[in-house]
Amino acid sequence: MADALFFKKHGPYALGRLAEIASADLTDDKGADVEIEDVAALNKAESGHLTFLDNVKYREELAASNASACILRPDMVEHLPEGMIGLLSGSPYKAFALIAQTFYPQEPSKGHIDKAAHIASGAVIGDNVTVEAGAVIESGAEVDKDSIVEAGAVIKEHVKIGAHCRIGANAVISHAVIGNHVNIYRGCCIGQDGFGFAMDADGFTKVPQLGKVIIEDHAEIGANTTIDRGSMQDTVIGAGTWLDNLVQIGHNVKMGRNCVMVAQSGISGSTTLGDFVVVAGQVGIAGHLNIGSGARIAAKSGVMRDIGPGEEHMGYPSVPIKSFMRQIATLNKMIKRDKSKD
Amino acid sequence: MADALFFKKHGPYALGRLAEIASADLTDDKGADVEIEDVAALNKAESGHLTFLDNVKYREELAASNASACILRPDMVEHLPEGMIGLLSGSPYKAFALIAQTFYPQEPSKGHIDKAAHIASGAVIGDNVTVEAGAVIESGAEVDKDSIVEAGAVIKEHVKIGAHCRIGANAVISHAVIGNHVNIYRGCCIGQDGFGFAMDADGFTKVPQLGKVIIEDHAEIGANTTIDRGSMQDTVIGAGTWLDNLVQIGHNVKMGRNCVMVAQSGISGSTTLGDFVVVAGQVGIAGHLNIGSGARIAAKSGVMRDIGPGEEHMGYPSVPIKSFMRQIATLNKMIKRDKSKD
Amino acid sequence: MADALFFKKHGPYALGRLAEIASADLTDDKGADVEIEDVAALNKAESGHLTFLDNVKYREELAASNASACILRPDMVEHLPEGMIGLLSGSPYKAFALIAQTFYPQEPSKGHIDKAAHIASGAVIGDNVTVEAGAVIESGAEVDKDSIVEAGAVIKEHVKIGAHCRIGANAVISHAVIGNHVNIYRGCCIGQDGFGFAMDADGFTKVPQLGKVIIEDHAEIGANTTIDRGSMQDTVIGAGTWLDNLVQIGHNVKMGRNCVMVAQSGISGSTTLGDFVVVAGQVGIAGHLNIGSGARIAAKSGVMRDIGPGEEHMGYPSVPIKSFMRQIATLNKMIKRDKSKD
Repeated sequence: MADALFFKKHGPYALGRLAEIASADLTDDKGADVEIEDVAALNKAESGHLTFLDNVKYREELAASNASACILRPDMVEHLPEGMIGLLSGSPYKAFALIAQTFYPQEPSKGHIDKAAHIASGAVIGDNVTVEAGAVIESGAEVDKDSIVEAGAVIKEHVKIGAHCRIGANAVISHAVIGNHVNIYRGCCIGQDGFGFAMDADGFTKVPQLGKVIIEDHAEIGANTTIDRGSMQDTVIGAGTWLDNLVQIGHNVKMGRNCVMVAQSGISGSTTLGDFVVVAGQVGIAGHLNIGSGARIAAKSGVMRDIGPGEEHMGYPSVPIKSFMRQIATLNKMIKRDKSKD
Repeated sequence: MADALFFKKHGPYALGRLAEIASADLTDDKGADVEIEDVAALNKAESGHLTFLDNVKYREELAASNASACILRPDMVEHLPEGMIGLLSGSPYKAFALIAQTFYPQEPSKGHIDKAAHIASGAVIGDNVTVEAGAVIESGAEVDKDSIVEAGAVIKEHVKIGAHCRIGANAVISHAVIGNHVNIYRGCCIGQDGFGFAMDADGFTKVPQLGKVIIEDHAEIGANTTIDRGSMQDTVIGAGTWLDNLVQIGHNVKMGRNCVMVAQSGISGSTTLGDFVVVAGQVGIAGHLNIGSGARIAAKSGVMRDIGPGEEHMGYPSVPIKSFMRQIATLNKMIKRDKSKD
Repeated sequence: MADALFFKKHGPYALGRLAEIASADLTDDKGADVEIEDVAALNKAESGHLTFLDNVKYREELAASNASACILRPDMVEHLPEGMIGLLSGSPYKAFALIAQTFYPQEPSKGHIDKAAHIASGAVIGDNVTVEAGAVIESGAEVDKDSIVEAGAVIKEHVKIGAHCRIGANAVISHAVIGNHVNIYRGCCIGQDGFGFAMDADGFTKVPQLGKVIIEDHAEIGANTTIDRGSMQDTVIGAGTWLDNLVQIGHNVKMGRNCVMVAQSGISGSTTLGDFVVVAGQVGIAGHLNIGSGARIAAKSGVMRDIGPGEEHMGYPSVPIKSFMRQIATLNKMIKRDKSKD
């Protein structure tokens, strides 16, 4: 399915092994030896492919599919066409992700230091690290084993980067300590001065920004995203937290574990998020707020108050999502009444 | 008019030739031999300059102008001062653009490969391609004739770039096939992983992103804009479509021909746009939607539903623009009534 | 307080000297000889540290603090604990900023030209300029004395950069004239084509963008921010104006002195701002508007009309902030009435 120009396919794999990888149960034990050559979307899968059904509304596409096997929830097994083997899983999408990773694993570091990379003599480079052409690693910086520093990336003095990280092309990192298995996408700017100044009639007086950025293990930071370092404390991105592209994180922000921020959203200075917070696209969160664990903020919301754990908010300014829906409904009623008077 | 430090002026040109270039009709055939030295804005034009009138409200500036010639619509010819030659055109701004391009053409490639460019041995570089200092072109990548790769740009393995393209400084491109006459501005990130993962209580499982990015002929992609590659299919930017700066395009998005997206707008994954769609600044469009050809979406709208061809939408969530205006008007009436009860 | 890995502390300094630097008055002249070793936040300050109190709500933290000295307003002097020396100032935060700058000054240029920098033979580099590895300075460009050009930055032909500037890593600058003491953060794109075209049924015709970008003294331009050059005139960022990260400035925009734009805000083409305008995060301002001096625009507003000097606006579309508050209040009343009818 994937363009062979860009992606190297592994396999084939026996279905039994794939079921094991995905912690799924085969609907027919005889299927364990069937060879699977690739993964594919439901509407593109051919014989020899494995696909998945995540939503009952696509059951007709499943009925018409030539896939050899399909991951689906146990309660959908009735939709499985005759002759197709089912892999039963409570989380079909996750099961599919694990199998797709098996066919298309992340390319590991080849341990190649390009001769056009600029590595200062005082930098510490671990075993099997790749540094591509044009990358700059300054004195005192450390990059731990099996990490990849892509072309043109700039790692400034004394930055620490853990093992198995990927630092994308043309990203810039300073004043930061980065854990293991962290993926910084291309074009990111991490560790620059926060936006801090005293303002009076004469103009602005810069407040030195004396904190750093801490990014914990397994975080992902999207393309062209910016994360400012702290002023008097650190900016922290928790373990397993994922930021999409063009996101802005202000100084002193603390994000917990496994949070998500969708593209073009931003958090102002000194705001704290718990764990598993979901921030949708183009949301803005004001400074000095607390957002509880498990909170969910709908796209384009403007958050001006604290949000409790597990609450769902929407609007500008944001309110609990039921209140937002009520606002819309009431306004529509008013319009109707207003029209009927015309 | 333009600063000679940065822009090389061509010409002078006879007015008759310029009229031909712009498909405009001279108000006075004797003007065909008048030499025009430059183009200029209405309020800055001097003798020897050509200017344009696009809006009747500037007719007094026209009356006071010393320009030798002016492009304007036939129905405005009465505002042409005595002694100034008119170029009549149904599209004065387009006519002006064509003439301005004649005085200030895009600098073509000089075919210079800088000795500080990093070009892998397995890359294919066409005739007359320019590659500036610090640019990186990896193995298997192809750049077709007359294209320019600016300083610090990174073109990853197997990317195909057509003829007459410009890849801006420090842009990064992977997993992409790019047509001819495409202009990728500086700082763009194209082809990185889409934001795809399965999420459960343990955290996130990455779904391999196995599609690519296709950018068709004559597209323009603004500075620091990000375009993710597809997950199981491709992300497509149609021919002649223009994206402004800091735009975000999610995975699997399909944009038709001649669409416009103004700065800081974004489209979530798997949404499809027809042709000639206009998306204004800071608009957000949710995922899995269809936006019909010719639709227009006003600035800062949050689009959560499909939009039909030719429809104009505004609001958060967006509604047809008349409904949005009605919302505002009704709310204002309510406020007035409310006040009168105080 | 600051991580010694990343920040070099100067000092210690006698409190009398620090009071002088901050134009503050000591509450006890005997304190002038006390040695101060560092600055610290109120809740982290130890003996030997200087801190500040900016808000009366933190008076209990002050009471519990071990700091040796504290900057505060004369009307808060009663909250100063016994044994702690006060520095009285009408602007405690500014006073603190000035003292923090004394302990942690910006690192000056060391005048080191890295051998892996790519400087064209026709570029003019002033005394004591630093150019880091991978930076590109093209022919005709000028960088004045004591400026720093960080790794991977690209300065295109004929750009002028003043003295004491810092051009961040991987920033790209063309068609620009930049004053003294200007701080361009990493990843910025300055001087690219504005988004100008004539549009008809055939598609788009590019209008050559013939202006430049002028950035005046002491301006700061945040990470990954984009500033387009003018079309027939210049784009101007006034002296002392600060832009945060991921900001977009369209062509021909004129910003006055000491304006602030918070992250992810944007200004469309040809809009003019006076002095001391404050634009909060994610605000969008439409094109061809006038925003008066001292105007303040609240976060996420969408500005579609002129704003007078000193006015405060909020909303989408934006209205005077009192009207916005009235909109919210009225809508909430309507909801209540509506509910009571249920």
